[in-house]
Amino acid sequence: MEKNLAVVLLSSGMDSAVCATLASQTYQLAFLHIQYGQKAEKKELEYFLKLCDFFKPLKIFIAKAYFLKEIGGSSLTNNTLEIPNSENSEIPSTYVPFRNGIFLSIATSWAEVIGAKKIFIGVNEVDFSGYPDCREIFIKTFNEVIRIGTKPETQIEVVAPLLKLNKKEIIELGIKLGTPFHLTWSCYKGEEVACGECSSCQLRLKAFKALGLQDPLPYATKNL
Amino acid sequence: MEKNLAVVLLSSGMDSAVCATLASQTYQLAFLHIQYGQKAEKKELEYFLKLCDFFKPLKIFIAKAYFLKEIGGSSLTNNTLEIPNSENSEIPSTYVPFRNGIFLSIATSWAEVIGAKKIFIGVNEVDFSGYPDCREIFIKTFNEVIRIGTKPETQIEVVAPLLKLNKKEIIELGIKLGTPFHLTWSCYKGEEVACGECSSCQLRLKAFKALGLQDPLPYATKNL
Repeated sequence: MEKNLAVVLLSSGMDSAVCATLASQTYQLAFLHIQYGQKAEKKELEYFLKLCDFFKPLKIFIAKAYFLKEIGGSSLTNNTLEIPNSENSEIPSTYVPFRNGIFLSIATSWAEVIGAKKIFIGVNEVDFSGYPDCREIFIKTFNEVIRIGTKPETQIEVVAPLLKLNKKEIIELGIKLGTPFHLTWSCYKGEEVACGECSSCQLRLKAFKALGLQDPLPYATKNL
Repeated sequence: MEKNLAVVLLSSGMDSAVCATLASQTYQLAFLHIQYGQKAEKKELEYFLKLCDFFKPLKIFIAKAYFLKEIGGSSLTNNTLEIPNSENSEIPSTYVPFRNGIFLSIATSWAEVIGAKKIFIGVNEVDFSGYPDCREIFIKTFNEVIRIGTKPETQIEVVAPLLKLNKKEIIELGIKLGTPFHLTWSCYKGEEVACGECSSCQLRLKAFKALGLQDPLPYATKNL
């Protein structure tokens, strides 16, 4: 029997790459990458294409959502706001307003047209930096919106298999499944080499260290 | 006391123009227009700018969401599919998959950044052409997603004041409030003059006729 199709929201970060690996076990892959004027856009695209080379998805869609940069409100897209190295506030400045609402809406539209049954998204509640749209209740309610807002015969479900895992567990899962971590990019900044200092690099480096493993990605500094 | 800000999703069609008129009575206006590669894009922008001239909103945002055209699946954006003159099927070919999910997500993101309290959208269930994302239950569930997916201090509500009105009642309301119908554009096709034949033109023309009124817009033909 032919496998069903699943859309994977693939930024090229570790979490979405582990999601892609999971999805590849059961589904045919449709990779969705979104460019929204984030500072690391060029590097994310470079690593997304490396991941496409690795996974060989059936379908690839690169969507341009630059209105997110125009809307602003986040240090990830605003050049006048610096990306902080540590984020102690409840909702950090790297929060992009309602980004996952927009990403899941685009994914839903594409899934409806290509007939995909699932949308994989790598959000997690544990090491999630405090973003409101990374929580289980958000995914659950969004599934209601999809059920109601698409054609009656459409059956699309958002799955977030990493929701309850911390970064360490995500890496462990990825290693078990064969996720190519050397082809993933996490750094929020857009430099040639990952900074090692932004909250995203720190989270990643700490998790590898806790596992007694070497992160295969090169870093400018490893300031743990 | 300063008025709160409301985002109005303004295509330049009659319904969204009546919404804008309603919103202008209570709120400061922030007009959001979305270009997504629809065939009438150029005319819609032309009339959107006329409506901006008329309403003089505090903020204007024109968002480009061309991924909707790339995703396809609708005769509104696909040049190889003709826009039908009558739509008898339950979900017509002019349905753009999950368009209102995408539009409301963009509106939510912008509303969160500019501090708007309401999002006005001109959907209605009565003369709604069978689109699943134009129903009250969709708006209601989307409000849940907004509540859960934005910062805790954010208070944004989608309001759809035309939900229960038919086209005739919408025109009556607009006339009462002073909506400039001569500055609105409904035709799905992108010709210089409204075609008078597509389902959107037909719905509009029939409603004006039923009220014994003349539609102020010029038409190529009026084939009622």
